[in-house]
This record gives sequence, structure tokens and C-alpha cells, in this order.
Amino acid sequence: MDYYAGVTKKKTMELGELLEAAKAGDTVRVNGAVHTIRHMGTVAFVILRKREGLLQAVYEEGKAEFLLRDIKEAAAIEVEGTLRENERAPGGIEIHMKSVRMLSEPADERMPLAISKWKLNTSLEAKLNYRAISLRNVRERAKFRIQEGLTRAFRDFLYGQGFTEIHTPKLGARGAEGGANIFKLEYFHRPAVLAQSPQFYKQMMAGVFDRVFETAPVFRAEKHNTKRHLNEYTSLDFEMGYIDGFEDIMEMETGYLQYAMKLLAKEYAGEIKTLGIELPGTDRIPAVKFSEIKELAAQKYGHSIRNPFDLEPEEEILIGRYAKEEWESDFVFVTHYPSKKRPFYAMDDPEDPRYTLSFDLLYKGMEITTGGQRIHDYKELTEKIKARGMTEEGMEQYLSAFKHGMPPHGGLGIGLERLTMRLVGEDNVRETTLFPRDLSRLEP
Amino acid sequence: MDYYAGVTKKKTMELGELLEAAKAGDTVRVNGAVHTIRHMGTVAFVILRKREGLLQAVYEEGKAEFLLRDIKEAAAIEVEGTLRENERAPGGIEIHMKSVRMLSEPADERMPLAISKWKLNTSLEAKLNYRAISLRNVRERAKFRIQEGLTRAFRDFLYGQGFTEIHTPKLGARGAEGGANIFKLEYFHRPAVLAQSPQFYKQMMAGVFDRVFETAPVFRAEKHNTKRHLNEYTSLDFEMGYIDGFEDIMEMETGYLQYAMKLLAKEYAGEIKTLGIELPGTDRIPAVKFSEIKELAAQKYGHSIRNPFDLEPEEEILIGRYAKEEWESDFVFVTHYPSKKRPFYAMDDPEDPRYTLSFDLLYKGMEITTGGQRIHDYKELTEKIKARGMTEEGMEQYLSAFKHGMPPHGGLGIGLERLTMRLVGEDNVRETTLFPRDLSRLEP
Repeated sequence: MDYYAGVTKKKTMELGELLEAAKAGDTVRVNGAVHTIRHMGTVAFVILRKREGLLQAVYEEGKAEFLLRDIKEAAAIEVEGTLRENERAPGGIEIHMKSVRMLSEPADERMPLAISKWKLNTSLEAKLNYRAISLRNVRERAKFRIQEGLTRAFRDFLYGQGFTEIHTPKLGARGAEGGANIFKLEYFHRPAVLAQSPQFYKQMMAGVFDRVFETAPVFRAEKHNTKRHLNEYTSLDFEMGYIDGFEDIMEMETGYLQYAMKLLAKEYAGEIKTLGIELPGTDRIPAVKFSEIKELAAQKYGHSIRNPFDLEPEEEILIGRYAKEEWESDFVFVTHYPSKKRPFYAMDDPEDPRYTLSFDLLYKGMEITTGGQRIHDYKELTEKIKARGMTEEGMEQYLSAFKHGMPPHGGLGIGLERLTMRLVGEDNVRETTLFPRDLSRLEP
Repeated sequence: MDYYAGVTKKKTMELGELLEAAKAGDTVRVNGAVHTIRHMGTVAFVILRKREGLLQAVYEEGKAEFLLRDIKEAAAIEVEGTLRENERAPGGIEIHMKSVRMLSEPADERMPLAISKWKLNTSLEAKLNYRAISLRNVRERAKFRIQEGLTRAFRDFLYGQGFTEIHTPKLGARGAEGGANIFKLEYFHRPAVLAQSPQFYKQMMAGVFDRVFETAPVFRAEKHNTKRHLNEYTSLDFEMGYIDGFEDIMEMETGYLQYAMKLLAKEYAGEIKTLGIELPGTDRIPAVKFSEIKELAAQKYGHSIRNPFDLEPEEEILIGRYAKEEWESDFVFVTHYPSKKRPFYAMDDPEDPRYTLSFDLLYKGMEITTGGQRIHDYKELTEKIKARGMTEEGMEQYLSAFKHGMPPHGGLGIGLERLTMRLVGEDNVRETTLFPRDLSRLEP
């Protein structure tokens, strides 16, 4: 019988510890994956890949107690040696190796991708086919550290604003958003669907916790094969009660983006440097009405509006350009979307019911958020359901929350992969998805 | 055109602000849901439900500028009045109402459950059928605040330990754990499955980020209709590379539990009081071998071992009792599970390959975690796959990660709803699941 009392400190050191707690001349022990080996005559550089970055280990013939050929690329090793300063080495330090211990060896096969190159010079297809390998490239990996920062900031900011985190089911009897893009399955001899969004659940929970959020997968059986669509993605959702208007939702999202950029600048500075990106300004985000910005962009860029009630991807791009040129902002809230383009639960604008109290947030001309105020009045909600020719069947529990009182509320959903894609400057959402799912891709 | 510059402070106050920033005699404005109304002659108490707890608003005939009958139970209202101290009121404060503003009114229907009672005195079935209503009960709601704390602690602790958060797909071509309990669906005319666990993905990502975690839903098509099984649950998963042995995993889990209990004590004290629960000790958690503890429990409680290679739920209960009586611990790690009970990727114990370097964590006699060291050597892994009569088909990408080098690694998965259930003292996992999915329940 043993006892476990918590984490004990390892004898091996991480990069941060080497930089902060160790000094030149110290004998240190580190582990890592052999990222690449550079032979320079009687000296060789063994580059170790560690979770915080790369570390240069120096092999000098005659000084090390082992032979260089004992070390294979892609092996996991532990080395002991002397820490030295070297401004040409990554992080300004290197380790002069004395001894090595093999932790794990690869099979004797060529790597399918040259991951040690600074920029992985290969097709998206190959990157995705060999995902477990391509992500070992330091730049590829850094994108997902940025993604972590965005998710972490979302939660931390909202905790601070009195939100409660919820976990809602992804298996259900019907979809929240309607439409044809629902994955169907059999659930113990009954028909079931995968959640397109946590919409109904987060609304019901706004009646319980006032403010709720969820960061979870959503599923869309869309047949779009574009650079910005996925069939499974991570949605950052929140819903808040006791709002004074849908402006509250946009304020909260702006607050989140400000918080996220601060967190990234502070905690993910290494990854920002690795990727060579600049964080966007978020001090103030312009908001403009759907019908107004359509006109403005059409006038400025000389195109004609084909459909006054729809926004095409090309128009989004022009609106993004307009916001950048006229308001110096990468972000722009487009408000008051047409009612017929929004689900039944969207609150219509009392001043013009053809439009809704809703918005999209565009980031460099691409929609990354849809949000707005929801109908909270039971009668109004059931009447809109009827007016749309929908049935209440399967929505009894959702509607009962309204029957028994719901505060005025609204919320939004942010596509995490799209937000990351724009932030790191990629042009295909698959680049910022660990294991994307699209029309043709179900593996790895 | 407008600008949004972040969250602006509301004129209404939350409970914490009333207690900290306001003083008796102040005119304050608050909103909330009318939880219940208690009539006491010319005075009435209107109990408001706010996200941080209950607040007493006092109606005095002649002093308020409105009629009591204008306020309906279950309405969302905003009141203005004078803050007073009253030690018999929740939180020691109350508001003497002057004016009221209706924010949202319920339909004219009786509430299906008496949510304002301290303990919701109804069947589990009714609670789940009316989930959006039953959770408005303050005690019911508190359980999910505790659940938030457990999830939040998991992430915060692991961030501090150098882990990276990942999002892995729930749709895939095959399951990681094998077996019959896989939900199947059609994915654009191809067969697909829902993830039983993020196992393969988190292992592959241990080769990228060294340490990764995920908090996400998993799906099990199990036909068990028990108090502890769900068909969809939230799994707190981590996987860590460069371990010295599977003991590292148990140390990390102990560290997490210690961190979680501290966070709960500090940030969720109100909910702990509401639920009347005591946090378990986590200073040190005993660990004992599978075969050994089976014997010990059998001897002490006088039952005979039916199958030396399996652990039945009744045995888990006795082991939990043994750990409590002999080692004063609510938790006990049961280590070295039989190889035939573990998936192919589990590392066998070199000292006795009938057993594995794996463990379960029992909490008050119920399994809440399964974890262990995984095979990291390509040859060993493919040989075990062969020895089990399995095929490598569909595992090419998983195996390629090993072919090209993986560090020694291991990890675990914690069932969030089970952990919450034990912590808050419930005996059915549905009590600590917002919207449970089981054999018969797919709604709400």
C-alpha cells in the first residue's frame, strides 16, 4: 500500500526553468523529442523539441560519454550536461551533453514530413493526413496554443462577469436551429439528432443561472465545401438574462475580445512571436446596421446589391474592408439582420419587424459570431412559431421555461476555429482545427 | 454608426455588491425572478431569485407606489427601494420596495413544481421532465455550481502544470475503445461513429504538446440502466508525456483534487453551505493493488471472490468502505488492473503481464476515474494489436504517431457527473447531470 500526496518535482527541467532558475555552468537534466540533428564535423547540434519551444543540445566528440549515432531523430531522450549561454541558440542557451538516456525510439522509417523546417512547406492535404506528425512543427503547434488562449480567456472573462459554465447534451430528439443540416442517428431504436447548437439549453439555463456559457462541439451536416465551413466545430456560447437590450451582448463580446488580447499578449507572447502575428485593436468596435452597411459598401466599392435581405461572403469581405478603411477596425458588428434570415426565437425590432435585434460580428470580413436578443414572452414566442408554420412538438420543455417566466435575455455563439484562423492569419479554417471534419474528411 | 467599448456597469446591483458596496439606508435597484411571495397581512415578502442567491424584498401597504397584486410569482422584475439590515433575511439584508418595473411576465399557469421549497420534494422523474423549472430551486442549482468549480479547477490546475487544452473531434470513422457500445450514424453516405473517448487523439497530441487535456462530451451506447451510467457524459481527460511511470498520473490526479477542494472552499463557499456538504480530505490518497485489495475486502467483510480478474460494483463499495475504515480516506486508487479488462493500448506490467500499469480511482466506493500508462513503443503496440486479433485498419494515423516516435506517456479520464454526484452526496448520476441521456431519456 502506497500513498499519493500530489505532484512531486521532476529532476528534469523545462525551458522556463532553465532560463529562470539555472545559470551557465550548472549541470542540468532535460528531456525532449529529437526534432533534428545538425552535423558540423566533430560537433553536432541536437535540437530538442520541448513543450515550451526548442532547445539546442551540443554534442562534442570525445566530451560526451556516448556516440552521436546512438541518437535518432524523432526519439524521446533525456540528456544531462552543462548549461551554457549562446546568443545564436534558441532562447540564448544550450546544453553541452555529457550523457544520454533513451526514453523511446521510433521505428526505422523516414518521417513523412520535414517538421523541423521553420515553415512546414507542404499541402494542407498532407498536413491533415499526417496530423499527428505535422503538428510537431513548432509553428503549426503554436496556432493551437493561441486557440487555447482564446478559449481560456472566454471562460476566465465570463467567470468574472458572473457567468456559470454549463454542459448541455449533444444528443437530442430534435435540433434547435431547424433546417436540413442536422446529423441524424438511431438512439436505442429511436430517431435522434446531434446538436447544431446549445441554443434551447442555454436559453433555459438563463432562467436558472441568469448568465451561462458553454465551450463545446456543435455539429452541422452542411454540404458546403468551402474554406470557412466545418461539419464539427467548437462553439463558444453564452447567454445572459436581465439585459437592457441586445447592445449588452455586443458590449460583453467586446469585453471578451479585449480580455483575450491582453491574455494572449501576456501569456502567449512566445507563440505570437513564433507566428509573427500582430494582435488586433479592440478598444472600440464599430457597429452598423445591416441595410446601412450594405449600401455604404456598395457605394464605395461600386457593386450592386443583388438581395437586400441577404449578405453574401463577397459582401462580408467588402464590409470588412470598409470597416478597416473608414473606422480603422478589423472587427465590425453588423446589426439588425433581416427577420427571415434568423431563427424563430430571434426578437424582431419593434421599430421595423422586418429586421431583428440581432447581429453578426465580422473579423477581417468574415462572420465569426452570430448573436442577439431572444424573445422572452411566452405568447410572443408561440405566436411566432405559429406564424412561421412550425410545430411546437418536441419543444414542450423549452416552451415551458417561457410559460413559467423567463427574463429578457440574449446571447451569442463564436466559432473558435474561425476566430483563431483570422487571428493567426490563415485563410482556411482547417488550418486552425486539430482534426477537421468536412465532406470528405472523417479521419484521422 | 455606434461604437462598443466593453462592458458598462449596470444600475442594478447583484447580491455581492449589495453586501459589500451598499449600506443600510441606501436607495438601491435590483432585478430578479419572483421566487415566491409570502403574505403577512399588510406586509408581504417578495423573495427574489438572483444568480448569487435569494434576496428578500419587503412590500408594505401604503409605502410602495404599486399594488402587491401587480407582482406575479415567476415574473422577472426590477425593484427600487431602501436597503435595510435584517438578520432573519437571507444574507442579513432586505429591500423595502418603493417602485417596481415588470421585465417579463409568465403565462397564467400553475408552476408544475414547488421550486421555492428548500428541498425540492419530488421524484427524480419529475425533476428531469421539468428540468428548466426544477433547476430554479436553489439547492438543485447549487449542485451545478459545484460542478463548474470541479471543471474550472481541472483546467486551472493543469494550465499551471504546463498542459495545453485541445479540442478533438466527436465524429470519427471508428471508436477508440472498441466494443459494442458505439453510437453509429451516417456521415455523407459513409458510416461514422461518435467518440467513446478522446483516447487516440490525446495520445497523438502528447507527442505534440507533451501534456494535453480536454473537457468534453463522450458517448457510450451502453444498455445499462443503472444509477451510475449515462449514455452521454462529460469527461475530464488528460494525457502526459515524459512520465517516469504510471505513478505520475496518480500524483497529478491527487494534485488536481487538492486544488479543486481549495478552489471550492474559497470560491463556492455559498453553494457548499446551501448543500450542507463537507469537502473530502485529499492530503494523501491510498493506492493498493487490484488483487490485494480484493483479498483484503473479501477477508474483512466475509464475502467470497467470484472472479479474480473482475471487480463488481458491490466489491467497489466494500473497497470504498475498507479505505474509509482502514485509511480514513474517501478516495482509493486501485492499481494494476488485469490486462484482459483493459484496452490494447494499456501497458502491461513487466513484472506480471497478466496485469497492467493502470488504475481506477474510487470515490466512496464508486469508480470515477480510469487511467494508466500507455504503450509508447511502436513494435510493442502493433504486436499487442496482433495478439488480440485486432486489425490495424482505421488506426493508421494513430499508429504512425508511434512509428515516428512517442514519449513514454499516460493519462486518465474522470467522469465529471460521477465526481459531482459523490461530492454533493447524491446517489444517482442523473441528479448531477443538467440534461441526462439514458436508455429512455432523450429529452428535454
